[in-house]
Amino acid sequence: MKTEITTLLEHWGDFDAVSKACQILEWDQETMLPERGGSARAMALSSLAKIAHEKLVSKEFRKALKEANAADKLSSKEAAMVREADREFKRAAKVPASLVSEIARAESEGLEAWRKAYKSNGWNDFVGKLATLVRLKRRMADAIGYAGVPYDALLDHYEPGATVKELDPLFEGLRETTVDLVQRIGRSKRKPDSSILTRHYPKDAQLAFGWKIVETMGFDRNAGRIDLSTHPFCSGFGPGDVRLTTRVNERDVRPNLFGVIHEAGHGLYEQGLDEKLMGTPLGTAISLGVHESQSRLWENIVGRSRAFWEHFFPIAKRQFPEALKNVKLADFHFAVNEVTPSFIRVEADEVTYNLHIVLRYEIEKGLFDGSIAPKNLPQVWNAKMNELLGIRPRKDSEGVLQDIHWAMGLYGYFPTYSLGNLYGAQLWDRAQRDIPDLEKKIAAGDLLPLREWLRKKIHQPGRMYSAKDLIRRATGREPSPKYFSEYVEKKFGELYDL
Amino acid sequence: MKTEITTLLEHWGDFDAVSKACQILEWDQETMLPERGGSARAMALSSLAKIAHEKLVSKEFRKALKEANAADKLSSKEAAMVREADREFKRAAKVPASLVSEIARAESEGLEAWRKAYKSNGWNDFVGKLATLVRLKRRMADAIGYAGVPYDALLDHYEPGATVKELDPLFEGLRETTVDLVQRIGRSKRKPDSSILTRHYPKDAQLAFGWKIVETMGFDRNAGRIDLSTHPFCSGFGPGDVRLTTRVNERDVRPNLFGVIHEAGHGLYEQGLDEKLMGTPLGTAISLGVHESQSRLWENIVGRSRAFWEHFFPIAKRQFPEALKNVKLADFHFAVNEVTPSFIRVEADEVTYNLHIVLRYEIEKGLFDGSIAPKNLPQVWNAKMNELLGIRPRKDSEGVLQDIHWAMGLYGYFPTYSLGNLYGAQLWDRAQRDIPDLEKKIAAGDLLPLREWLRKKIHQPGRMYSAKDLIRRATGREPSPKYFSEYVEKKFGELYDL
Repeated sequence: MKTEITTLLEHWGDFDAVSKACQILEWDQETMLPERGGSARAMALSSLAKIAHEKLVSKEFRKALKEANAADKLSSKEAAMVREADREFKRAAKVPASLVSEIARAESEGLEAWRKAYKSNGWNDFVGKLATLVRLKRRMADAIGYAGVPYDALLDHYEPGATVKELDPLFEGLRETTVDLVQRIGRSKRKPDSSILTRHYPKDAQLAFGWKIVETMGFDRNAGRIDLSTHPFCSGFGPGDVRLTTRVNERDVRPNLFGVIHEAGHGLYEQGLDEKLMGTPLGTAISLGVHESQSRLWENIVGRSRAFWEHFFPIAKRQFPEALKNVKLADFHFAVNEVTPSFIRVEADEVTYNLHIVLRYEIEKGLFDGSIAPKNLPQVWNAKMNELLGIRPRKDSEGVLQDIHWAMGLYGYFPTYSLGNLYGAQLWDRAQRDIPDLEKKIAAGDLLPLREWLRKKIHQPGRMYSAKDLIRRATGREPSPKYFSEYVEKKFGELYDL
Repeated sequence: MKTEITTLLEHWGDFDAVSKACQILEWDQETMLPERGGSARAMALSSLAKIAHEKLVSKEFRKALKEANAADKLSSKEAAMVREADREFKRAAKVPASLVSEIARAESEGLEAWRKAYKSNGWNDFVGKLATLVRLKRRMADAIGYAGVPYDALLDHYEPGATVKELDPLFEGLRETTVDLVQRIGRSKRKPDSSILTRHYPKDAQLAFGWKIVETMGFDRNAGRIDLSTHPFCSGFGPGDVRLTTRVNERDVRPNLFGVIHEAGHGLYEQGLDEKLMGTPLGTAISLGVHESQSRLWENIVGRSRAFWEHFFPIAKRQFPEALKNVKLADFHFAVNEVTPSFIRVEADEVTYNLHIVLRYEIEKGLFDGSIAPKNLPQVWNAKMNELLGIRPRKDSEGVLQDIHWAMGLYGYFPTYSLGNLYGAQLWDRAQRDIPDLEKKIAAGDLLPLREWLRKKIHQPGRMYSAKDLIRRATGREPSPKYFSEYVEKKFGELYDL
């Protein structure tokens, strides 16, 4: 049936096909690509990115979009499709091609400089590249436009609609309650014995246990895969083809265990998208923050809960008879919930993690409003680290140089991690009221009701509603940090006897 | 440096990137794709094929090609690039879009009908689709144009420049000498004991042995992979990324063993292409016939030779101590060279194989000159089978329905398999004269001199020369079937004591 937006959807379909091809090639690059195939792959990806961009800003696409924007009898779904296509078009069309290629070059040089600087702990080798990237991204923000401050235009790329004005109170609240909680935990006499997690956990048993968990979560094995990669990630190419990756350390059960639950949380979102929306502007996740809400809800709120381990601990004992011999459920549960200030974000626990993000958020704001000069970053970083977590990095590779994001030009990305924590806790609060006996169900290994609830409330709508609207509709409340604060206060209050 | 064909090469690069993406997605489809990802993948591939086609027939490409064709100071390499781009453009531009999509639909319906017919042995369910495909392909041939007969336009797609006029004497000669040789072998008192090949060969040992062989052949593990798939194939995405697939039957050592050598023969061609030609119209193999010459030379002429097994049989004995206990080299070598008429092409031996191709070639010619009506195919097939191999299929699934090619619209493809045998033998003849003590080297496990010779003579030029020119340049002789006839006559004369 031909509608007023059929032509637009046809063009979008082409753009989508090329974009998906890029994603599949990127997945392949991380999991399958032979060593010597790297440069050809980089070239192919850059050509395909150019072709996707050309599709979006082509005369034909502009014309179809203009017609669709002028259409007057659109359903709400069609209107949302036009809105999302328009949004994507504007971001693509507003940035001049010359700036796009300047940025691409600066990112590739930034990455190279960062890799060297990270190894040699040499901040000075990297700061110039970072300064260039900040300058170019600032120009990009100006080209795209913003209502409040330039940084908003960057945030919007990962979390559509997010602004400093909205995030500031969220992160200030999070900062205050978390700093206080971490200090109280630090003073607690109770300490877990996390050495039980670093015994010998054989690789095959870890992988089998991981599959056992994600299948119980409702991750469809006929519509997905798990492979190995250096950095775990999740890629979705439509609900029928969702791929997780993991890494295994035989001397630490956590990276694979919680990594796989985390990625499967993302994976359930991708598997839960509406098949009928595929290839349209509504056929993907709405924002990184909402995506992260799914991974963190499953990883932390469910996967580190007492109820979860009531079901899975006996299975874990069978899977790892040596490592878990004589270990009690309560001790295991406490160990996987250890809270302690540390330098490295990706290794941080559920509570201190957000302070790592607050730090990065405050620095990114400063970089883009000019109040922090790139050359001063190490001092600023270390001072803030001390302020927030009471520890001070001994070298930049465990401080300001630890993340790859800034070298890759990802500014405005970090805040979505904490948004995920906040959204996740708010969804959990509501799910507990919507699903009778949710914790009991989890303790009995029945995780599907939660997956179904999330599928209906979060996954199925795709990009139909904005992230905030989606959270509002799912929970009946304005997005707020209070659910997360209450959740950690209660959980860690009990664990650490505060 | 900007030359007169820079613009053409830029456009070609985009076309090439999309085409390569399609190939990678197809490899993924056969090896990695989750079951439920099939329909999304089919849609993505059809969109990408459309986009690649659009690139090739776009106004911009036409203009760049016209300018390049008018350029007067091209090097021979540049001229070859223009020639190949022009060729590809013409094939794409001459066939009306409506016919392209009619054919795509007919192929997809043909494939579906064939799958059913193959299972139920129901020729009548399939013949209508085949008749449609032949009619559409005939229209395609007319659109493309030909000097001799319509079938030439189809042949040209897989073997540029091949014509019935040239192939007829080749295949007639092959028919005559092969029928005679097969009959003489049938009358021989000597028979190999091929039951030693169907003992228990454990999967892991088979895969390890396969890798051992292909690495000795010079297949670069850092620039390639081997995965499992239902039907073995080789995909090359540039010299740094070449992927073979295989299948393993624990009760028959042959499918994986000779499959892997065959695919690695293809793989060496792909790894041997000139890095500098990548992304240009010269950056791929010149024809299917030449590609098949590489796989068959390695699989049959090398991989089934006495010299090869002098080196590898002791290794095989260590790899399969149970299965090969008490087996002698001579008996193993004779067993892997058993010649016997059989119904199924893909299981046929080195000698009878060509008769399977002669049969298909004669039928395809008849379908396209109108002398054979689709409805009579089973009768024609069975009569020819009897004439050529002295056996008559009991059912169509072991006769006319056995191959997937015609259902997929691949007409003019089969002859390239035999061309590969002929070219392979001619190359081998020359290689023996160019490389001192070649057989001795092979018997000592030194396969690299042969790979180097092939790389220089066949792989590196890419599409610089036509297939026939390439064979002429490599061997110093006109392409001829006599080298193959002499080779099989000598080899099987000795084995069967003729």
